[in-house]
Amino acid sequence: MPVGTQATVKTLSSEDVEGIGFKLVLANTYHLSLRPSSELIQKLGGLHHFMSWKGPILTDSGGYQVMSLAKTREVTEEGVRFQSHLDGSQMFLSPERAMEIQAQLGVDISMALDECPPYPCSREDARTAMDRTHRWAARCLESRGESQAVFGIVQGGVHPDFRSESVAALTSMPFEGFAIGGVSVGEPTEMQYPVVAATAPQLPADKPRYLMGVGHPQDILHAVECGVDMFDCVLPTRMARHHSLYTLQGRQNIMGSKWATHDGPVDPLSVFRQTERYSAAYLRHLFKADEPLAGRLATLHNLSFYARLMEEIREAIEQGTWADLRERYRKA
Amino acid sequence: MPVGTQATVKTLSSEDVEGIGFKLVLANTYHLSLRPSSELIQKLGGLHHFMSWKGPILTDSGGYQVMSLAKTREVTEEGVRFQSHLDGSQMFLSPERAMEIQAQLGVDISMALDECPPYPCSREDARTAMDRTHRWAARCLESRGESQAVFGIVQGGVHPDFRSESVAALTSMPFEGFAIGGVSVGEPTEMQYPVVAATAPQLPADKPRYLMGVGHPQDILHAVECGVDMFDCVLPTRMARHHSLYTLQGRQNIMGSKWATHDGPVDPLSVFRQTERYSAAYLRHLFKADEPLAGRLATLHNLSFYARLMEEIREAIEQGTWADLRERYRKA
Repeated sequence: MPVGTQATVKTLSSEDVEGIGFKLVLANTYHLSLRPSSELIQKLGGLHHFMSWKGPILTDSGGYQVMSLAKTREVTEEGVRFQSHLDGSQMFLSPERAMEIQAQLGVDISMALDECPPYPCSREDARTAMDRTHRWAARCLESRGESQAVFGIVQGGVHPDFRSESVAALTSMPFEGFAIGGVSVGEPTEMQYPVVAATAPQLPADKPRYLMGVGHPQDILHAVECGVDMFDCVLPTRMARHHSLYTLQGRQNIMGSKWATHDGPVDPLSVFRQTERYSAAYLRHLFKADEPLAGRLATLHNLSFYARLMEEIREAIEQGTWADLRERYRKA
Repeated sequence: MPVGTQATVKTLSSEDVEGIGFKLVLANTYHLSLRPSSELIQKLGGLHHFMSWKGPILTDSGGYQVMSLAKTREVTEEGVRFQSHLDGSQMFLSPERAMEIQAQLGVDISMALDECPPYPCSREDARTAMDRTHRWAARCLESRGESQAVFGIVQGGVHPDFRSESVAALTSMPFEGFAIGGVSVGEPTEMQYPVVAATAPQLPADKPRYLMGVGHPQDILHAVECGVDMFDCVLPTRMARHHSLYTLQGRQNIMGSKWATHDGPVDPLSVFRQTERYSAAYLRHLFKADEPLAGRLATLHNLSFYARLMEEIREAIEQGTWADLRERYRKA
């Protein structure tokens, strides 16, 4: 899923995202509830109509953003009281309110409200957040709308026993899918991989398994090997705006002087329909000249790279050519 | 001509500009010679290839930009010595160098180097600049490349006798077209219209007449009545980035609260293919949220409005329905 935090994948139109071939996009409950508000979007016909996106939409519940963006926050059993990062106004998010907002947006997949502790966090704090996440999960299911599909979010930090406990608690509830949360929150990769490897296989194989906020191509390949089906990540879009292009030779910083005279693609093996007209030298010029087109072309490139990665992952699984795929993306 | 100062029409790709239907775009000698340099663009196959623009390109010669953007400048008979607005480096632009740069860019229409005095300016200064412009015009023609098409630029400030003198001087030289320069440099509209009305009809009818840097739809309609054929202006693109949309009801500031809940176009009579999917409420949200897509959608809208204006101007001339056109654009 490309990340369309504020009802747009940054720098792109809905046509652009359709053109790359993505079916599902992610938007953010936290941001949209603050601006322009879920009530307004509902009044305007729902999020699909508002942003003119014809495919399905998943929304993050806001748990992670409240912890990472809000100015102040107070977590109680009832929910989270926080100050908007935009204007400092007092807001309140509870499991029931998170379900209501997502119902107002009219999205296809709602995420349960979780408490996502930062890394590092003590074992005791990880337990507290996990236990609350489970109670909130039940409240989300109780308060959801009739046709609202909801995914539960596994927490438990870097502790394998907690993760197993969280999987058991959540899979006992009738969610439509399960996400692994609390990963990619600042912990080193060597701590992230074991969590994914231990948790994903415990989730039901007949429901979607979604790893939230991950990641680099290598992280995605590893997670797919562990049984993960779905991903969202800001990396391809954020890196693009910081001049960094994904290629099969690794990420390339287009600001490097070697690209100034390069009348061709950054990687002949990563040429995509929506950007093939434009050379590395032109893209570098656009970034140097601070032209808005720069971010758009780089975003189109990076999302095309990720779309191809996911397409080739599906093919390799079906055709039993995983080792070849791993070799192909060895440096990516 | 949409203005593509730095080899891109701000916020748009070449596909976008093609999609609106423009054939000819303008780029800037001054900006491109500073960054990335005309030598580099030549090495990379010329400006068409560099920016992937399949249609013709006209470049401004840099005379106006040296006066308006450079940090310091010293005009002598030889040319203009100035400091780059980017890094303060010393640069020199002469008629010969202006022709050379535009030949290196490989554009279809080169503009002669003129001295464009600001408004207000004394009658004496207007004469000095005009006389020098004529001598520079001759040097441009002498130094141009074999197949380089060049337009001369009429100067003379707000003085009708000077304008006539300038027309006589320039039309005695073998230019491929003629531009009216020194207009829209800060003078009030009531001084601009008489200059255009007095100058345009004196220019040969069998060569293109180009009014530089103008303007509002009303200015364009007036100038066409005076016999002008070609225009460039930053207004539609710049206004777009400042939330202002051209419509048949006049310009609309999309930030106005009345648009917050408007699930439709800003003007039902100004709906264009490239933006029709998006409501006024969505565009306002994008601007409020500081999303890059906002500027692009507004630019697509405004350039579509201008493209339609020019298309309808051509039709009205052919069909003898000018009065109807004037009525249709009365509030625009």
